[in-house]
Amino acid sequence: MEVTRQNFKECLSTVYSAIDEADFLAIDGEFSGISDGPNVSALTNGLDTPEERYTKLKKHSMDFLMFQFGLCTFKYDQEKSKYIIKPFNFYVFPKPFSRTSPDIKFICQSSSIDFLASQGFDFNKVFGHGIPYLNQEEEAQLREQTEERRNQHANGLGTPSFISPSSKGPAHVPDEQKDFINKVVEKVEALFSGAGKTLDLDPCTGFQRKLIYQTLSWKFPKGLHVETLETEKKERFIQISKVDEEERRRREQQKLEKEQEELNNAVGFSRVIHAISKSGKLVVGHNMLLDVMHTIHQFYCPLPEDLQDFKEVTMCVFPRLLDTKLMASTQPFKELINNTSLAELEKQVKEAPFKPPCFETAEGFPSYDTAQEQLHEAGYDAFITGLCFVSMANHLGSFLTPPKAYISPRSKLIEPFFNKLFLMRIIDIPYLNITGPDLQPKRDHVLYVTFPKEWKTSDLYQLFSAFGNIQVSWIDDTSAFVSLSQTDQVQIAMNTSRYAESYKIQTYADYIQGKQQEKEKLGQSAKSWGEDCWVRPHYSSSTGFGYPRRKRSISPIQGEQGGEGAPTCDGWNNYSFPDGTGSKKMKFEDLGGKANVEAVESKTSEGWLKMTESSYSAESSPVPDTKSPEGTEPGSCADGTATWHQTPTVQGRKGQKSKKKKSDASESTTSLFEVPEVW
Amino acid sequence: MEVTRQNFKECLSTVYSAIDEADFLAIDGEFSGISDGPNVSALTNGLDTPEERYTKLKKHSMDFLMFQFGLCTFKYDQEKSKYIIKPFNFYVFPKPFSRTSPDIKFICQSSSIDFLASQGFDFNKVFGHGIPYLNQEEEAQLREQTEERRNQHANGLGTPSFISPSSKGPAHVPDEQKDFINKVVEKVEALFSGAGKTLDLDPCTGFQRKLIYQTLSWKFPKGLHVETLETEKKERFIQISKVDEEERRRREQQKLEKEQEELNNAVGFSRVIHAISKSGKLVVGHNMLLDVMHTIHQFYCPLPEDLQDFKEVTMCVFPRLLDTKLMASTQPFKELINNTSLAELEKQVKEAPFKPPCFETAEGFPSYDTAQEQLHEAGYDAFITGLCFVSMANHLGSFLTPPKAYISPRSKLIEPFFNKLFLMRIIDIPYLNITGPDLQPKRDHVLYVTFPKEWKTSDLYQLFSAFGNIQVSWIDDTSAFVSLSQTDQVQIAMNTSRYAESYKIQTYADYIQGKQQEKEKLGQSAKSWGEDCWVRPHYSSSTGFGYPRRKRSISPIQGEQGGEGAPTCDGWNNYSFPDGTGSKKMKFEDLGGKANVEAVESKTSEGWLKMTESSYSAESSPVPDTKSPEGTEPGSCADGTATWHQTPTVQGRKGQKSKKKKSDASESTTSLFEVPEVW
Repeated sequence: MEVTRQNFKECLSTVYSAIDEADFLAIDGEFSGISDGPNVSALTNGLDTPEERYTKLKKHSMDFLMFQFGLCTFKYDQEKSKYIIKPFNFYVFPKPFSRTSPDIKFICQSSSIDFLASQGFDFNKVFGHGIPYLNQEEEAQLREQTEERRNQHANGLGTPSFISPSSKGPAHVPDEQKDFINKVVEKVEALFSGAGKTLDLDPCTGFQRKLIYQTLSWKFPKGLHVETLETEKKERFIQISKVDEEERRRREQQKLEKEQEELNNAVGFSRVIHAISKSGKLVVGHNMLLDVMHTIHQFYCPLPEDLQDFKEVTMCVFPRLLDTKLMASTQPFKELINNTSLAELEKQVKEAPFKPPCFETAEGFPSYDTAQEQLHEAGYDAFITGLCFVSMANHLGSFLTPPKAYISPRSKLIEPFFNKLFLMRIIDIPYLNITGPDLQPKRDHVLYVTFPKEWKTSDLYQLFSAFGNIQVSWIDDTSAFVSLSQTDQVQIAMNTSRYAESYKIQTYADYIQGKQQEKEKLGQSAKSWGEDCWVRPHYSSSTGFGYPRRKRSISPIQGEQGGEGAPTCDGWNNYSFPDGTGSKKMKFEDLGGKANVEAVESKTSEGWLKMTESSYSAESSPVPDTKSPEGTEPGSCADGTATWHQTPTVQGRKGQKSKKKKSDASESTTSLFEVPEVW
Repeated sequence: MEVTRQNFKECLSTVYSAIDEADFLAIDGEFSGISDGPNVSALTNGLDTPEERYTKLKKHSMDFLMFQFGLCTFKYDQEKSKYIIKPFNFYVFPKPFSRTSPDIKFICQSSSIDFLASQGFDFNKVFGHGIPYLNQEEEAQLREQTEERRNQHANGLGTPSFISPSSKGPAHVPDEQKDFINKVVEKVEALFSGAGKTLDLDPCTGFQRKLIYQTLSWKFPKGLHVETLETEKKERFIQISKVDEEERRRREQQKLEKEQEELNNAVGFSRVIHAISKSGKLVVGHNMLLDVMHTIHQFYCPLPEDLQDFKEVTMCVFPRLLDTKLMASTQPFKELINNTSLAELEKQVKEAPFKPPCFETAEGFPSYDTAQEQLHEAGYDAFITGLCFVSMANHLGSFLTPPKAYISPRSKLIEPFFNKLFLMRIIDIPYLNITGPDLQPKRDHVLYVTFPKEWKTSDLYQLFSAFGNIQVSWIDDTSAFVSLSQTDQVQIAMNTSRYAESYKIQTYADYIQGKQQEKEKLGQSAKSWGEDCWVRPHYSSSTGFGYPRRKRSISPIQGEQGGEGAPTCDGWNNYSFPDGTGSKKMKFEDLGGKANVEAVESKTSEGWLKMTESSYSAESSPVPDTKSPEGTEPGSCADGTATWHQTPTVQGRKGQKSKKKKSDASESTTSLFEVPEVW
């Protein structure tokens, strides 16, 4: 269902009930650009730490605009044994609410815009009919302003923008305006004595309107209603009405209601995000880190400086996330899927060993045809993301004894994938762990090299030619990470470079330590985020109209084009992989088989294990489970939705395996990306 | 005529000939925003110096995109006694030329986008089919790259991006790729011995393609043509063809021609601007400063730091400019026109004492209907701007004896308006003088006041209540200019403030001096602009793909909405004008009647007089005059086009008046805005 400013209000209840009844939600965003700064390969260095990546994305991507938001709700129908889906495609645009509301600026990246245009994206719909929105702070301020205006209004007829608190006396009318004002007063006196109820003055300047308001408020404190209206030509004029007390109150009430409605209109699309957030339902996305960042940034609050704070905000807004790109790149799926781009994934999960998911589009919703790809329409992308999730989730059921064809999104089998967001193009950290510490792979084989800006990749190859295959990850013009294939070569390389003048080599550990010290020297400002969460961001409002003057927005469109995440010739070039077939798969194999064998920190393993062991029961779940048929309908076990009831068995088994894994953790990371072997 | 990427090439000759034959050109641009920074009223402080204004516009407006360019050519048809017009509406978009070309980012301002959307602006046409363009530096670099690639290509088959200068030996093929490469070599050997002419390899990775190029270049230095092509699915594969020397040369030639064409396509819309520039014709615009700045910025070079340099660049690109907003605000028109917004001006110049201009749309061009306003489409705005110019120019003919109904755009009567670009919302400097020093009004009655950021306009009123009417021009949160109505109050105000702690008052002169000293302390970098003009801007290319990585673009849409230039309640509020009628007119009256009486510096007057006195003959004119009928056709005097022949009389008269003016200059500025009284 396409939702614009024109039909938003009438669609809202449909959206709310779709979210309410859903078993899970899939989302996707389309953006006006990806990276405002270094080129994408520099933005996504293969050896970024999660903190560095977050900081880069925040800095270089949040000024873009998310202008299309796709939501597809999935509700499982037990009787039909299929999902009933409701896809929504929202066009979103920060149309200024009034002349005094913030005038958002956003960046467009011509390559992204060009790409979307080539996909038939309708910019006219976005810019002409996009649904407005406010973030939490803007909404609070608008409510405050409305409240203030209301209070001021209660004290007289004045429009607050013209009445300064000090001007309670008669207006100071400049000589040249006296005639004009006197004539207005005469007309109003005539209105009082005459039979007419209303008087329309001629259009006049803002200054004159101010004088009129002040003068009338002083001369006729009762019995008048004064209002500024606009002619068809957008000229502003004053309308004066004679009113008795009852009429005045009626008008007040009308005005109140109108204001409330305008306020809701201004909050606009943010209300949909609030509903998603409040539902606490599982939110599925594909390569969704940027989607999550943008959603929070546009509809909640500016992103916090610190990654840890971001994780906390994210958990407030989206308590349960699942990234299908991460899922597809992880055991047991990574063996089956060699290209995790959304379009390819969608094709692969329709074929054996996967089963194409059964679904039906709800009545009244236009149905998408997956054969006729409508990729890069957010609603469609959300829809197929949800399908991919369903296929993969159900595939997990085949490992159970007896096998199950349907796995509920509330099943424990899915848990290991919760709240881990895929990290694009990081060699040894596949995901950002929203609910715990991130993986800290050892990078003993990595060197930090600085050199003259004339150097090219070939120069680095030449320099390290004695030390076997290398991988170069450019940082900027004059520095790069060089990963050696053999860690024992590191010390030798360091030794030979000792007297070099044109370049300098540091171990990765030294580099990180240096950065840390630099950061400490800069004396980071005290944190104040964690406690209040996003509701009261610790950004002080800057000047202007009471709104912070800043740009908002962002987006990852291109990442999904073709072999994203694959070693391309731009950032990753010249690294010879063991085999030259798959793209994403290649990366993970490389990762599992090489550098990362000893990369797991016990801290992380514990986090992982804790998560899979934590009891996850309907009681403690934030998901309102009342509408779920699980355990309430007899025979509902048939298709595997009744996972809850099997908990004891499953947990017992898992417990065993988990113990085993704990002792294995330091031996191999591959287990990290496997779904725990509970079946 | 609507011109997009799709019909640009076929329209280009039509555009060229329209420019060639025209008597004058009118232009207009539409932009993605106006001000990226302070709100517009802060951006356009009423007491800006021209330097300050230029710096602000450059800083806060150039990151927007000019995405529609209107050109309307006007050619006078002697026989029909009317103008033949050819309107063009170009959609412009910086579509990246290739994967390595600059990926332009531009800012959109939601109020501007919202406004254009409400006017039915077609964003899909801009983003989907906009004509690409390059500035001079980008074009030069692209030509250089092409040249380089050509030279490298001449030395072998390698694609330069894969062949580093050092790798002349056999390619280093990693072990795991050896099988793959050996198979390719076998296939090529089979191609040589077989009957087939062409061999398509399977799609493979960039790294593998690199290895193939290197290996084949080494093993088969002759007789092969190797090319990378794309499948329909955008997968890249290598095609190898057997070629003899003649075939090879033919392919080279084809490739050369294709490259040349691609290069021209990439330069795209800039070619239109080059043609306008080369023609040297009079270019008319309405409130055109931002149009000129954007045009130079997008299609020629980044704008210089310094205003003087900007003026020089402008004269290189547009040797003769005329701003109809400035013309309409100047004698003898300012008495006749009380609203100089384009829409209002267009209406007024159709009515007495003006005569609606006679025109006819050239065959093959869709004709605009001025009754059905299509304002804010650049082509239409350019068109009516031209009409306004024609009406006003012809009106000048009514002052001649005998009166003339037609005044040529080459007439001396127009000269006083040349190269003076309207300055929005500056109280006492109506225009930027592109070909001379700017007006330097005295600002003895102006005070620079700093205060706590809680202060509002009312606080300033209170503070200065003893000194008569004031005008407040906000600079930022904590400072403003306060203009007193009586200069003799300045010293008293200064004295009373001496011991104030919460605020501080400086005279305007002191303020300017302080700023100047600050600037000198910062030690401005040496100028290098003036001499080379724009062809070689003194910006060194930054890193990246050989293109400077920067954003380009901009725009003044809103300025033309409603009473632009008028004292509104935002920036100018609370200043009581002598009368409350017209808007623009009001400003100028205020200016003439008040502060500015002694504002003319003799330097400026001389500039003005020099300009009006300079002899302006067809010989010295850069306008190719061959097609002009003036003086060549007998009887052409009838409608006033033969102004040239009256030169002696006119000059004699003008000389007299000019002398008078020289002595008057220090008494009244109003004469500054009058067309010299040559009639």
